[in-house]
Formats: sequence, structure tokens, C-alpha cells
Amino acid sequence: MNDALISYILHLADNTLILAQQNSAWCAHGPILEQDIAITNISLDLLGQARNFYQYAAQIINSAKAPSPLKRAGGEVTEDTLAYLRDTRDFKNCLLVEQANGDWGKTILRQFLFSNYQYLLYEKLQHSNDEQIAAIAAKALKEVIYHLRWSSEWVIRLGDGTEESHQRMQNAIDELCMYVDELFTKADYETALLKENISVDVSLLKNAWYKKTGEIFSEATLKIPENVFQQTGGKQGIHTERLGYILAEMQFMQRAYPNSVW
Amino acid sequence: MNDALISYILHLADNTLILAQQNSAWCAHGPILEQDIAITNISLDLLGQARNFYQYAAQIINSAKAPSPLKRAGGEVTEDTLAYLRDTRDFKNCLLVEQANGDWGKTILRQFLFSNYQYLLYEKLQHSNDEQIAAIAAKALKEVIYHLRWSSEWVIRLGDGTEESHQRMQNAIDELCMYVDELFTKADYETALLKENISVDVSLLKNAWYKKTGEIFSEATLKIPENVFQQTGGKQGIHTERLGYILAEMQFMQRAYPNSVW
Repeated sequence: MNDALISYILHLADNTLILAQQNSAWCAHGPILEQDIAITNISLDLLGQARNFYQYAAQIINSAKAPSPLKRAGGEVTEDTLAYLRDTRDFKNCLLVEQANGDWGKTILRQFLFSNYQYLLYEKLQHSNDEQIAAIAAKALKEVIYHLRWSSEWVIRLGDGTEESHQRMQNAIDELCMYVDELFTKADYETALLKENISVDVSLLKNAWYKKTGEIFSEATLKIPENVFQQTGGKQGIHTERLGYILAEMQFMQRAYPNSVW
Repeated sequence: MNDALISYILHLADNTLILAQQNSAWCAHGPILEQDIAITNISLDLLGQARNFYQYAAQIINSAKAPSPLKRAGGEVTEDTLAYLRDTRDFKNCLLVEQANGDWGKTILRQFLFSNYQYLLYEKLQHSNDEQIAAIAAKALKEVIYHLRWSSEWVIRLGDGTEESHQRMQNAIDELCMYVDELFTKADYETALLKENISVDVSLLKNAWYKKTGEIFSEATLKIPENVFQQTGGKQGIHTERLGYILAEMQFMQRAYPNSVW
């Protein structure tokens, strides 16, 4: 049970850390100052969620008597070692969040697809039998509601905007829609924790997700392509090439200057 | 004298390593197979030069009795530690080679500007009073002659090609021409080694470089912009932001798995 719980918490943390890292690249590069601040604040929200989950995972790993491959060189595990000293195969984020930023439209769409999922997930997760997970989800839910509203408005503005902004949004959909089903495909650790009502059965979120997405896309005059071959693997540590580049950049400081602290 | 010599050899090595690393990103992405192989072979040539210079630098550093910041944790310095365990401020490559690949035209232009310089440099350097440097330069000169011919032909083909290829080449010139003067600006270590005829006075290569560049650009119907503010610093370890990303990617394996070997 402990292994599944640790994997599940790391999955929740990795999703938000990787998306935070990617969104943060927009800092000082947003289309207008207000929106630059908005996407940067979303990054910070997601990073805060990641920290809460990592701290909780570290606490469980450190209190377990069994040795863990995550305990490096006999040291304690911390939120920092979990973020900076694991390699791609250890990361359990879904493939969607590691897809490239692309243009502003693609970043917005990625945020909308993920926030829509995260809203449905946290709404259930706040009632998890694991009190710590429930508390983190309940606290984060307020942030996610804002992320979902913000990204929904942008999807509509760009989709139902100029010919070019519409085309770019449709291109972004074509590039990202193959990573949607993974959100609703249970990883082994999610299945293992269902019985005790610790995890959420993500397959049951799918209909509500498509309903909301359909409503927003309809208003945005955008289409979801059908019969797209779906990619999976990220939640089990099998990632696209890009995650390696994200980690190389994100982990450079701690890798090059081991044990350095702020 | 030793410090200047080490810095000079590292400068020669870093130039070729960074350009090799950047060119290698075209492997399997070239516009046609023959040219994909060509740019990859140029990468390998440059990497070979880098290895020769790093091995020589390591030999000098290891034989010196004085402690060196390059000797990590009391260990020996090797070509690998010099390539993988130094940070941006230790790298002495010129800014030109660390500029982004951009499109095929920009990569070609960067190669032409650098090969034109490297040809003139190695032609002199093969007569250096340092026998090892002279030997490496003499051996590499044959490769550089080919790099220069290959990139010259491409500059002409694209510059005097379609309207789009011409415009892209002109854009590439506008992006790269601010990094040209640094090639002909002596770093302190180059000045220090002049007296003993170990280094080359790069300021004396400038006229021949502009003559050759002018000839090729004229045939390619391209223009060198005038009065461009020139960037310098790379040869002294002051780099553009991009070098950090290059090193993060290039050094990830050795940083994440210290002391790993092939």
C-alpha cells in the first residue's frame, strides 16, 4: 500500500511541478503584462501544490523503515531531492503537461485541458480518506477554479477571434488531443488505492470533462477531432523525449552544485 | 605562462565543442540525407578537434604541481571532466558558436563565418611554437578547408536562391553579424602567449576574413550591415543566456550520474 501511496502522491506532485515549470517560461514573455502576471501566478499556484504533495511524500518515505531508492546516499528525502534528483523514468506526470509551450494559444489550451481535469479530480479528491491529500486538494481547488475560468475565457477569445487565432487554436488541439485519454486511464497505483477510497477513479471523470470541453469549444467555434490514436505512459514513467530537456534545465543547478541551498 | 596556455587551449577546445554540440542537433533533421550526413560529419570533425585540445589541456593541468580549480575532488582532470563538469563562466568559446541553430540557413551561415575564421587561424597556428597545438591545428586544417568550401557553397546557393531563401540568409546575417568582431579581439591569454609565438594575433586575420566573406556574400547577393554594435565577452567567460541551456542538456548525463563512463 505504501508504495502505491507514494507513487500516487508523486504523480499528483509531478503533474503540477512540470506544468508550473513550463508555464513559468512565459514570465516576462506574455502577450500583455496583465496576462503575463496571470500565467506566472498560475505557475506559482501549481508550484505550491507540488511542494505540498512532495513534502507529504517525503514525510512518508522518511518514516518508512524500508530502504527506498529515493533516499540518496543515505540522506533524508526532501521536497527538493524529489524535484531535482529524480530522472525521467521516476517522474509520473501525464504526458499532456510535458508537451511544449508552443505559442500562447497552445499554452492556454494545455492549461484549459489540464485545469478542466484537475477541477474534476480535486473536487473528488477533497473527500479522499487520506486526510493530508484531501486537505491539499481542498485548498488547491479554489486556485484551480480560477485557472479553469481564466483558461476557458482565453480559449473562447482565441477560438472565436481572428482567422489566425482560430487556426492556431485548432492546430493546438490537433497537437494536444492525443494526450487527453491518459488523464482518464488509471495507473496501477490509482487502482490499488481505490478500495480504500484514497485515490479517485479517473475513468469516471471522463464524461463530465468532455461535456465541459464541448461547451467551451462550441462557444469558441473549435472542434475536437475524432478517432485520434491516444498516447499513454507518462503516469507509469514512460515519457516523451521532451521531459528530458525540461529536467535537464530545471535540475541543472542542483545537479551541478550538489546540496546547494537557497 | 601556464595559466594563459591552459586558458588558450580551453578556448580553442570550447569553440569546437560548442559548435559540434549545436550542429549535432541536425542529425536526422537535415533538409536532405546527403546534407544531414555532411553537417553531422562536420560535428564529428569539430568534436575530434575538441578532444585533442582537451586531452592536451588535461595533460598540462595534471602535470602541474599547483592545485587547480579544474581538479575536482582531488581527482585527475580528463577530457570528459573539462567538457562536462565546468559551468558557463569557465567556458571560453566565442559568442558566435553558442548562438541558436535557427533554420538551416542560419546554421550554414554560422558555420561559414566560423570556418572562414578557423581556416585563417589554423593556417597560422600550425606554425605555433607549441608543438602540440601546431600539430592539432595542422591536422585539423584539412577538415576546416572542407567545412569552409561546403558552407561557402551553401551560402551562395541560399543567398542567390529563391526570394525566401535569400531573405532568410539576410535575416541570419543580421542576427549573427554582431558576434563577428569578437573573433578578432584578443583575449588576455592570447596576448600573453604572443611573445613566445604560441598564439596567433587574431586581429591580423580580420582583413583576410572580410575579403573572403565579401567575395562569397557578393556572389550570394548578400550584404554585410555596417555600424553594428559588436558583442564580446565569451572568450573571457561572459556568455549569452543560451550557453546555459546548451550545457544543461550536454552535461545532464554526467551531472545526474557522476563518474559514469561509456
